[in-house]
Amino acid sequence: MNAINVNTKLVGLLGNPLGHSFSPAMQNRAFEKLGLDYYYLPIEVAGENLGDVVKGISRMNFAGFNVTIPHKINIIKYLDEIDELAEIIGAVNTVTIKDGRLKGYNTDGSGFVRSLEEETGITVQDQNVFILGSGGASRSIALTVAYKGARTICLCNRTVSKAQELAGEINAKVRECCISVTLDKGEMKELLKDCDIFINTTSVGMHPKDEEIPLDPELINEKTIVCDIIYNPLKTKLLKETGKKGCKTVNGLGMLLFQGAEAFKLWTGKDAPVSDMEVILHVLSR
Amino acid sequence: MNAINVNTKLVGLLGNPLGHSFSPAMQNRAFEKLGLDYYYLPIEVAGENLGDVVKGISRMNFAGFNVTIPHKINIIKYLDEIDELAEIIGAVNTVTIKDGRLKGYNTDGSGFVRSLEEETGITVQDQNVFILGSGGASRSIALTVAYKGARTICLCNRTVSKAQELAGEINAKVRECCISVTLDKGEMKELLKDCDIFINTTSVGMHPKDEEIPLDPELINEKTIVCDIIYNPLKTKLLKETGKKGCKTVNGLGMLLFQGAEAFKLWTGKDAPVSDMEVILHVLSR
Repeated sequence: MNAINVNTKLVGLLGNPLGHSFSPAMQNRAFEKLGLDYYYLPIEVAGENLGDVVKGISRMNFAGFNVTIPHKINIIKYLDEIDELAEIIGAVNTVTIKDGRLKGYNTDGSGFVRSLEEETGITVQDQNVFILGSGGASRSIALTVAYKGARTICLCNRTVSKAQELAGEINAKVRECCISVTLDKGEMKELLKDCDIFINTTSVGMHPKDEEIPLDPELINEKTIVCDIIYNPLKTKLLKETGKKGCKTVNGLGMLLFQGAEAFKLWTGKDAPVSDMEVILHVLSR
Repeated sequence: MNAINVNTKLVGLLGNPLGHSFSPAMQNRAFEKLGLDYYYLPIEVAGENLGDVVKGISRMNFAGFNVTIPHKINIIKYLDEIDELAEIIGAVNTVTIKDGRLKGYNTDGSGFVRSLEEETGITVQDQNVFILGSGGASRSIALTVAYKGARTICLCNRTVSKAQELAGEINAKVRECCISVTLDKGEMKELLKDCDIFINTTSVGMHPKDEEIPLDPELINEKTIVCDIIYNPLKTKLLKETGKKGCKTVNGLGMLLFQGAEAFKLWTGKDAPVSDMEVILHVLSR
């Protein structure tokens, strides 16, 4: 990297703990590729200090920042403005700073959708979507696919009340299109028959528990596109088993890539060099 | 440089405008030489934002920062603690951050003294010092040499009231040792007869006005050590002319070097690799 100078635009990643994130290497490669004097750096911030840090960096030479766990919801109270989709989701992962004003966006859900659409050639509009899990990632994805015109959404979660609550929110905020279902095999099988897109948003199957699978792959038919937001391993057991049956599969690397590509565009105004960023992700996830 | 990761200790340079400073290259070379995961970066901050930025970075992974024009005095109100010499000077150029607590130091004056002592082998104790100029640099140097036991200090300034005020402050805060003098040639000549150390703290002779000289070199006797805090050019006309007469001379690069070396020690707890830092300064000041 070049040295950071007084004109270098900084971009932060705010979370706690941050551990090892792929975003710094991916974004810095993108800045470098386009010859932009930007630098992306991780900033670990405890919850009680979020406001002070955000205020401080908004007075420094930052173009913006990414927000990750556990600050995606709490960040909102420090923003001057929020994008419509991020407001519907109720969570922000990307913030731009212009003239000291902060605007929040959510590129997690839209990053997922773009990854799905680019890798499979379909659009989510009018599709029947089945989402396993009701945590933060599920929330961003479910509200985004609803917003982008999915025909139906089934939300399935071990704690049914969480799925019910999120389904109710989607129906109220976006459009009456969402139901919640239990993990009951019979009920799932019935609903998965007409499913166009299945999305696992749980951590079941993530390294080091590579041998776990979040549901019986027999429940999924071979016409269904199967997505997993996990990217370690790249091919989870779910994707392996459903791939064997003939399903098209989409791993989690694309969501990571495109949420970053969309954030890059928001900070720089330029289209992200997606293929260069993808190379970095493949190297890091090896 | 290595990429900034979540463990990298950051060190800032806060000022406005910053323009091109030698400190980032010098400090980063020092960190690299000692294999320390630190990174020094310039942060331009407007006066009205100083408090917000300081509070923000004190909640991030910063080991501290340098402070430069115009914030060296205003920074004090944001500190939790101040070193005795910095408090006497009334200005801070170095801040350490430990467990979120900020402590201010002034290494400008002590950096000058260390440079003088290392380059000439003398100590300031019991010496007769003559200082031209009464601005911020003069203030740090004059109060530091008084604090370190100079026998007498003559402060000489075009606006005599400024010199009088600073002299009064030194006499009150440190020890009765300081007088102010006018630019009157006769008076200067008399005082310069017994002068051990002459220090130019004005900008007269700085590039691009290399041909200017702040006083008639005939007034300085050949036993006097002549110091100029200017480092561009390295050899000002003052140093050239007095050098010709046989005076030992000290240029301004050493003050820059040692104020940085002392700050480095405060942030890292380790002795700075002075000769490596000096190489960088020589390259940059060519």
